[in-house]
Amino acid sequence: MKAFAMLKIGSVGWIEKPKPTCGPLDAIIKPIALAPCTSDVHTVWAGAIGDRHNLTLGHEAVGEVVEVGSMVKDFKPGDRVIVPAITPDWNSLEAQGGYSMHSGGMLAGWKYSNTSDGVFAEYFHVNDADGNMALIPEGMDPAAAVMFCDMVPTGFHGAELAEVEYGDSVAVIGIGPVGLMSVAGAALRGAGRLFAVGSRPKCAEVARTYGATDIINYRNGDIVEQIMDLNRGPVDKVIIAGGDVDTFDQALAMLKPGGAIGNVNYLGEGDYIKLGRLNWGVGMGHKRINGGLMPGGRLRVQKLTAVMMAGRMDTGHLVTHRFNGLDSVETALMMMKDKPKDLIKPVIIA
Amino acid sequence: MKAFAMLKIGSVGWIEKPKPTCGPLDAIIKPIALAPCTSDVHTVWAGAIGDRHNLTLGHEAVGEVVEVGSMVKDFKPGDRVIVPAITPDWNSLEAQGGYSMHSGGMLAGWKYSNTSDGVFAEYFHVNDADGNMALIPEGMDPAAAVMFCDMVPTGFHGAELAEVEYGDSVAVIGIGPVGLMSVAGAALRGAGRLFAVGSRPKCAEVARTYGATDIINYRNGDIVEQIMDLNRGPVDKVIIAGGDVDTFDQALAMLKPGGAIGNVNYLGEGDYIKLGRLNWGVGMGHKRINGGLMPGGRLRVQKLTAVMMAGRMDTGHLVTHRFNGLDSVETALMMMKDKPKDLIKPVIIA
Amino acid sequence: MKAFAMLKIGSVGWIEKPKPTCGPLDAIIKPIALAPCTSDVHTVWAGAIGDRHNLTLGHEAVGEVVEVGSMVKDFKPGDRVIVPAITPDWNSLEAQGGYSMHSGGMLAGWKYSNTSDGVFAEYFHVNDADGNMALIPEGMDPAAAVMFCDMVPTGFHGAELAEVEYGDSVAVIGIGPVGLMSVAGAALRGAGRLFAVGSRPKCAEVARTYGATDIINYRNGDIVEQIMDLNRGPVDKVIIAGGDVDTFDQALAMLKPGGAIGNVNYLGEGDYIKLGRLNWGVGMGHKRINGGLMPGGRLRVQKLTAVMMAGRMDTGHLVTHRFNGLDSVETALMMMKDKPKDLIKPVIIA
Amino acid sequence: MKAFAMLKIGSVGWIEKPKPTCGPLDAIIKPIALAPCTSDVHTVWAGAIGDRHNLTLGHEAVGEVVEVGSMVKDFKPGDRVIVPAITPDWNSLEAQGGYSMHSGGMLAGWKYSNTSDGVFAEYFHVNDADGNMALIPEGMDPAAAVMFCDMVPTGFHGAELAEVEYGDSVAVIGIGPVGLMSVAGAALRGAGRLFAVGSRPKCAEVARTYGATDIINYRNGDIVEQIMDLNRGPVDKVIIAGGDVDTFDQALAMLKPGGAIGNVNYLGEGDYIKLGRLNWGVGMGHKRINGGLMPGGRLRVQKLTAVMMAGRMDTGHLVTHRFNGLDSVETALMMMKDKPKDLIKPVIIA
Repeated sequence: MKAFAMLKIGSVGWIEKPKPTCGPLDAIIKPIALAPCTSDVHTVWAGAIGDRHNLTLGHEAVGEVVEVGSMVKDFKPGDRVIVPAITPDWNSLEAQGGYSMHSGGMLAGWKYSNTSDGVFAEYFHVNDADGNMALIPEGMDPAAAVMFCDMVPTGFHGAELAEVEYGDSVAVIGIGPVGLMSVAGAALRGAGRLFAVGSRPKCAEVARTYGATDIINYRNGDIVEQIMDLNRGPVDKVIIAGGDVDTFDQALAMLKPGGAIGNVNYLGEGDYIKLGRLNWGVGMGHKRINGGLMPGGRLRVQKLTAVMMAGRMDTGHLVTHRFNGLDSVETALMMMKDKPKDLIKPVIIA
Repeated sequence: MKAFAMLKIGSVGWIEKPKPTCGPLDAIIKPIALAPCTSDVHTVWAGAIGDRHNLTLGHEAVGEVVEVGSMVKDFKPGDRVIVPAITPDWNSLEAQGGYSMHSGGMLAGWKYSNTSDGVFAEYFHVNDADGNMALIPEGMDPAAAVMFCDMVPTGFHGAELAEVEYGDSVAVIGIGPVGLMSVAGAALRGAGRLFAVGSRPKCAEVARTYGATDIINYRNGDIVEQIMDLNRGPVDKVIIAGGDVDTFDQALAMLKPGGAIGNVNYLGEGDYIKLGRLNWGVGMGHKRINGGLMPGGRLRVQKLTAVMMAGRMDTGHLVTHRFNGLDSVETALMMMKDKPKDLIKPVIIA
Repeated sequence: MKAFAMLKIGSVGWIEKPKPTCGPLDAIIKPIALAPCTSDVHTVWAGAIGDRHNLTLGHEAVGEVVEVGSMVKDFKPGDRVIVPAITPDWNSLEAQGGYSMHSGGMLAGWKYSNTSDGVFAEYFHVNDADGNMALIPEGMDPAAAVMFCDMVPTGFHGAELAEVEYGDSVAVIGIGPVGLMSVAGAALRGAGRLFAVGSRPKCAEVARTYGATDIINYRNGDIVEQIMDLNRGPVDKVIIAGGDVDTFDQALAMLKPGGAIGNVNYLGEGDYIKLGRLNWGVGMGHKRINGGLMPGGRLRVQKLTAVMMAGRMDTGHLVTHRFNGLDSVETALMMMKDKPKDLIKPVIIA
Repeated sequence: MKAFAMLKIGSVGWIEKPKPTCGPLDAIIKPIALAPCTSDVHTVWAGAIGDRHNLTLGHEAVGEVVEVGSMVKDFKPGDRVIVPAITPDWNSLEAQGGYSMHSGGMLAGWKYSNTSDGVFAEYFHVNDADGNMALIPEGMDPAAAVMFCDMVPTGFHGAELAEVEYGDSVAVIGIGPVGLMSVAGAALRGAGRLFAVGSRPKCAEVARTYGATDIINYRNGDIVEQIMDLNRGPVDKVIIAGGDVDTFDQALAMLKPGGAIGNVNYLGEGDYIKLGRLNWGVGMGHKRINGGLMPGGRLRVQKLTAVMMAGRMDTGHLVTHRFNGLDSVETALMMMKDKPKDLIKPVIIA
């Protein structure tokens, strides 16, 4: 079959691969809709996870089940499913301890386009199909559905990691598609004033749609000062969905004692995250620092799609560009790399 | 001064009382807007808290500060404030342990029209003014603001006690004003499908406005069956904001193992709450049963008003009837007792 | 092979059964040490889980692996393992939601001698061997190890469900082997004063060994009064490990607002658990009521055995009687039924 | 009256000060037993909190009440009390939000020898006496009691911040008196294997008494490697009670994904705490980083002393040196500065 792969660092292309085989607990899926992710860009052009050869790219896809293993109970060929980017081994010690995304080792629940072939292919494989797939809810647009593979679970996890509660003042740093879902996620935990930090007009507009009360643009001055001024003091919680290793000290500077930082930004560069000793209260300030990979699995997808089906938010606002045909994967990925001004997220209908 | 009081069980009237005196930590408030509560009705006509003589009624008021004690730091005469129904002693052991509403004993943070004179008077007293008052946010209608004394903090507490999380299917039993705020509170914690159980059309309409996806009317059959049918199985969480001691077993019957019940309904009658042994999984089902008085104090009011100021919900929908003049307190209270069909909550502008 | 089974309600005996077969994820175990449980007694003579025919009894055993399935990675024949009473399906929605003991339905993680054959046989079967077995720690007596199948995880879960924290005053109602492990579990969460309610001298003595500070005997008067007198008021937390449906109202009566009840007692009889309306603060007292089946699985066993290996408690004190030979299972079970005065727990070395 | 004060950075001495005056909520205490703290040493000789002039030192004292304010309800002259190092304003927004130690601003619940005169004087002042003092339990040695001012609440808070649970493998870095209390605190939350990192033989011996299973000495090699070897992999939790800004990356290196670090070490020097990007899982590893000042107040002291009164640990092992007479404060402080080999904590009986 055809697969769109990372050939080596800096190079991508279509290659022939054998169709994946289906173990007793597994499923084989034919994509219906796919999306590239900024982390695909990092993987290929920044070498973020090290070199890979002929590794199929992509970890965001919804599709049709074409085969299931003999021990799969809840799915059958023809089912239309969402497959989350993270597909844990559910009987692992890590999953039993509540951290399924690290099943088998730190980040090892992340398999697609990392340790296994990804989803940009005519067919892809799902380990533990019963545990790791969820039906596309009736009536949901596949392009909207593919946002539940990574954008929604990652963005909402930012609001969970930041422990957002009713009425909290919250800053979300970075409003790419993940950050926008952190904005939505914070609003859906009942945030009060909600500062969205970003400079692209399209993203700012959608941030307001998802519940941001204020847009903070670094071009207008120091973001810490801007937020502290508007909020008349530090905020209750900060979600980091963009920036780099230096963003954390800014987050600490704008955060109340007793507050929390939730990071969902993949930190691709730098040796150290630096926490200002004084900003962190000489170690005594009760400013909790959390960061983690999105939770995967079937239940998570079911719960998150239920939020949209209840009418509380619409992932459709993220999808700014649509392409037709699996072949368009390459165009869409290059668009993700080049980030045109009006882009949030491109989707390919296969 | 004039005060509207419970004279004895079953009897109310206007009496003369001395203007309250202001201790060093206290404040004296002149009401701007007031609201009667179903619990005032229970107190007077059901004798729910035992007999009381010439006790000023009311625990929902916003007003203007007319005097503050010598040790009050953050407020001054002229400030317009919300005073929550629960005004704890913040240095008590219970408050230090996280349960300020029980400062000094179970439920003892509830003072107004319980152990002290209430707010239906020309002036009323606030203990620990710095700890227990919050400014009315600029631009907020006083009638909307008075909903933050009890309706919002109680209703939202239901969603907290039920531990609502992203995508949970939730049933809210009872959609009077508190139940409606539980609906809003559940939606603002990211509930998925949200069943609101009630029969009055006005309440049903407002429940949808606050985020209910389905209205369940007991006149159409057993509510447990209706919900289980629509939800294709039990729900994740149940909020009890109405009914009686028998409601809990219904809640258990519709609840998943691992789920939680959050009760904010004052149980005025009956010797026992009865939990069906089998519905509760022979003691082994991990169906958590929580119930508690609203948290009071300044921070809570500030946080909850911030939710509305961010545009995430509008308490104005609760206010179906408005009266002018302190004198109207009696009419409004009788309306609360008689519950006309189109009533949610009456407010008196003093 | 030989199996000791429930023939029907009220009747037990040895029968011939085929040796269990091993699926790809499973293991077959030959018992090394076994113990009967009070719930075996309830199952047979009270018909607690309904009628069963020729169902092998027993859910507490450690043993030697004799066969593993093709997909099992971490175990091999010859390994000596502890198998917990609860053996969940780890990819189920319930397990993903943190309640693996209810995988497949309320209580359905409990398979042995409930929905599948138990462990009182020459060989028994383990579903999901990697997820549900743990090595016996080096140097641990098998009789002590078998206490980790049910007694320790259930008893300690009582302390978790009661949310015991540093310095809490705690009452443990019932000091059979599970209650004794709740005493140990409460002490190992840093309880302060720790009241153990029971009347058998041997149990009282061992309760002190495990950390009880006071023994409360119902023969000396009302247990609520005794505890409230000694504690000068209500306690912070209550663990229920004995009694019946009426015990809960006693627990509420001795509990502070803001406190929690943790139930690990299987409630075999009665239609309703009754909560006194006033004792429960008219629904407003923040007295949390939790109850649940022990968490099973490999990680849990590893963690709990680590507590003993660190020298913090010794399950050996529970083992008051030892028998040799699988045949002794019947004698041990009858002893559990008759409860001689000096019995805590009998163990059979197979 | 006589007070032992920091005259300026690097200089201490006895000075005359007016006896403190007692506000309506306050109390005046005459010390019974006192202890110097390493942070007194940092304050004076490292200038850790900036320059101070004639500021009375000390924040660890138990004493006799000699005067109470008119609004104090629960204490009277003659009462013998423990006064915690942290004495919050309980009606502050921070305290209402659960972070009383930051009442009035980050770390501002810490008043003694920081923003107000300390306890090394003939008399000292307590703000909010009802909220901030606790009776010395009957029969407790005053020298043992003074350990509850700072050593126990700080050390145990480390185990809370690290979220230690049953069976966790835990490393405690630093075993001065605070670290030793973190060892005890971890054991009293049911830790499994418990690695105590330190090199002084006296501390190592006492660490074992408090529950350490292994002593790790940096002189024997890299502590990360030693612990990972013995534990056959990373630990579940790390408590930091010593070291410096570079200790955090070591802690991350030895910590499992899904684990937590609890810091109670006052970080006196360095611009940044550095977290290794890879050790922190590129921001995705779910390694929580917590750090905070001890919780103060009356309830906390009552709870912690209850642990000792229940016989679960004895603070007496910390007290290696005893002095008589308030005058000895200087000798004891110099001893704390010089740290002789056999010192854990000196106490002065006034």
